Amino acid sequence: MKAIALLGAPKDQWPTDLAEKLKQAKQNGEFIIGVDRGSILLQGLGLKPDLAVGDFDSLKTNELSQIEQTVPDIRYSVPEKDLTDTELMIRYAFEDYNVEFLTLFGSTGGRLDHFMNNLLMVLKPEFSAYTEKIAILDQQNIIQFYRPGSYTIKKLPGYKYFGVINLTPVHNLNISGAKYPLTSYNSTVPVSFGSNEFLPAKETFNLACDQGVLAVIQSKDLDRYQNI
Amino acid sequence: MKAIALLGAPKDQWPTDLAEKLKQAKQNGEFIIGVDRGSILLQGLGLKPDLAVGDFDSLKTNELSQIEQTVPDIRYSVPEKDLTDTELMIRYAFEDYNVEFLTLFGSTGGRLDHFMNNLLMVLKPEFSAYTEKIAILDQQNIIQFYRPGSYTIKKLPGYKYFGVINLTPVHNLNISGAKYPLTSYNSTVPVSFGSNEFLPAKETFNLACDQGVLAVIQSKDLDRYQNI
Repeated sequence: MKAIALLGAPKDQWPTDLAEKLKQAKQNGEFIIGVDRGSILLQGLGLKPDLAVGDFDSLKTNELSQIEQTVPDIRYSVPEKDLTDTELMIRYAFEDYNVEFLTLFGSTGGRLDHFMNNLLMVLKPEFSAYTEKIAILDQQNIIQFYRPGSYTIKKLPGYKYFGVINLTPVHNLNISGAKYPLTSYNSTVPVSFGSNEFLPAKETFNLACDQGVLAVIQSKDLDRYQNI
Repeated sequence: MKAIALLGAPKDQWPTDLAEKLKQAKQNGEFIIGVDRGSILLQGLGLKPDLAVGDFDSLKTNELSQIEQTVPDIRYSVPEKDLTDTELMIRYAFEDYNVEFLTLFGSTGGRLDHFMNNLLMVLKPEFSAYTEKIAILDQQNIIQFYRPGSYTIKKLPGYKYFGVINLTPVHNLNISGAKYPLTSYNSTVPVSFGSNEFLPAKETFNLACDQGVLAVIQSKDLDRYQNI
């Protein structure tokens, strides 16, 4: 079973077709999760979460009662805990519901301390089994994560550019079959190789490293920013 | 001399008072820089850049002529180069114009491969002298960077939360005088300690590490997202 989670970051970074994406996912039997304010945002989009996780302290009383009356599984988190609400949600999704793949929306933009938590949580040892099973998606980007190995990365529809970031020290990083190849790159600190491109008429590039965790960000420009 | 640079990320992450901030900076004798599309965005805000850097290939012909007619120093970058336009700009600002401190706007949101380039460029050895002289500012966040040492971090007006991220492996990271202290923390990979808070009636916290580069993100919620 695949799962989709909506977090509480501002709506302005949502894909414009988020409501349709979510409804389609629900119809396909995917598991729908609300994280804190994301739970009420899902209901605003006409979707009932299957699971809600959070301390819900930013919700109004009537919003919380609405969640309590409709969501079958609610996990109340304790503020000042070691794991964030999103990290707790990841644990519940993979451990209690055995989801195969989890896509996060509402996890970019807004407060960047939140975004950095969401980006870097895959590096925590307790989440290492889930690193390659999590994607972060917003209006212009999709982020996926890769542990050491050799991968063929597929161009996703509508995306033109990509960036590769070693989120950790990296050994023998290779990018091939792309506009800007990279060979046997080593670094003790993270480096962002952004603005790379798929080759014309090629729908993949190759990515490999011996040590490290990589983020691949496929991205696109928005027309409305092209001609201001 | 201080400097402000406007990059080309979408306007929706700009501080709402960006135009006033820029005009005030100009009046105070600060140096105004446009990076690529940021040059034309500055003119749209009624400001003439002192320096423009970019390949300008996304600009219309009349936009480029407007820049060429009004900006006293234009540096044309070569696409497919090793340094991004923003990195070239940093070199020109600090080396040619000896700026003391550089604040970047328009460098968050939009394409996250661009954002990650902007966030991680301070780790490049050639920019190590400028790490602590660069800030990234948007509607809800201000990011500053710290090399090993001991610091008193001041609460900036209007910000409630902060996050500390070791962008690199870190040794003996300490956060004290804050809601969530951290003592003698070591890590071989980046970790984001987000959602920390200044103590009530305290306008600072203490930060120290022996090895590593830290990002401190001061952040705030926006009222418009509080009650949806």
